Amino acid sequence: MTLASCCSAPDTAQSAREAVLENIANRKSVRSFTDEPVSDADIEVLLRAAMAAPTAMNRQPWEFIVLNDRDTLDALAGKLRYAKMLKEAPLAIVVCAETMMTNREGATMENMFWEHDASAATENMLLAAEAIGLGAVWTAASDPERSKIIKDALGIEGTIMPLCIVPIGHPAGETAPKDKWKPEKIHWNRW
Amino acid sequence: MTLASCCSAPDTAQSAREAVLENIANRKSVRSFTDEPVSDADIEVLLRAAMAAPTAMNRQPWEFIVLNDRDTLDALAGKLRYAKMLKEAPLAIVVCAETMMTNREGATMENMFWEHDASAATENMLLAAEAIGLGAVWTAASDPERSKIIKDALGIEGTIMPLCIVPIGHPAGETAPKDKWKPEKIHWNRW
Repeated sequence: MTLASCCSAPDTAQSAREAVLENIANRKSVRSFTDEPVSDADIEVLLRAAMAAPTAMNRQPWEFIVLNDRDTLDALAGKLRYAKMLKEAPLAIVVCAETMMTNREGATMENMFWEHDASAATENMLLAAEAIGLGAVWTAASDPERSKIIKDALGIEGTIMPLCIVPIGHPAGETAPKDKWKPEKIHWNRW
Repeated sequence: MTLASCCSAPDTAQSAREAVLENIANRKSVRSFTDEPVSDADIEVLLRAAMAAPTAMNRQPWEFIVLNDRDTLDALAGKLRYAKMLKEAPLAIVVCAETMMTNREGATMENMFWEHDASAATENMLLAAEAIGLGAVWTAASDPERSKIIKDALGIEGTIMPLCIVPIGHPAGETAPKDKWKPEKIHWNRW
């Protein structure tokens, strides 16, 4: 980068654009962490990113349970066979949502979009983690077996459901992002 | 920004970080578009971002139907009451997924995570749109009524399901992002 180009407005916009696209491309699942704790400031960055996601009808049904208590993380690591990395993670965030809603007529019914909303929030959180130098991995929690374990362990009430648990920490070692670009997944104007 | 600070490496990392977080915070639902078409290069940027999202067990069940044919967009605008902005959008992307999978024992079963995977891809696409100066909005398509309309209109086969349709274009006018930060949605170590 030259001095002549680096401080002009168009170049700043260009580099902001590139920074966003590179961050999306560089996000990877990180399953191994150092002992270093995640700061409260970084936790807030992650949660602010999560709550910036769109939700159906702007209902914002999400709820976030931040786990940074060692015993709680270890207990869940022992119960969830696909989330054993919680054992070495200094932090995890359980992304949950209220699964019921009130419709336009005032009746209570299932919010069929809660998983979409919570997923968008989770992806925002993963991208923010990548941006601030943290590593994270999305581990599923919404199936009957895992959701029961998590609800029991964390005291989650009735119609609130966990979507996923995201172990988070400072990455131990390097992990390369996967190249998943497949033009054959693209269809034009018809299936 | 001063010349002294703008070209040092730490500052570049800092501004990349800020660019990513600002982009997440600035993403908003854009429902009004100019006539300007979206370039093929920009369409590829959006699809590359979508396919960089994580998927459960790395199954990548997603499929993308790119709509840039005026008659197709208009026909769907007429049939989907919550997606009438398709009428003025030069582009829309239908995010779909294969809803069935083969399990470890070789049996065919529903992939209960297809909506999570397709949602993460959609969020990546919305963030990429924001980054490159496009506007977009997530409109739901997975309920029985809308999914039937879309499957019929686009010839989508059996077990492929649409998650959403995202109208995309160059924004007409300014739209401010919503502030959805609610600390009361955060719980510590227990519900």
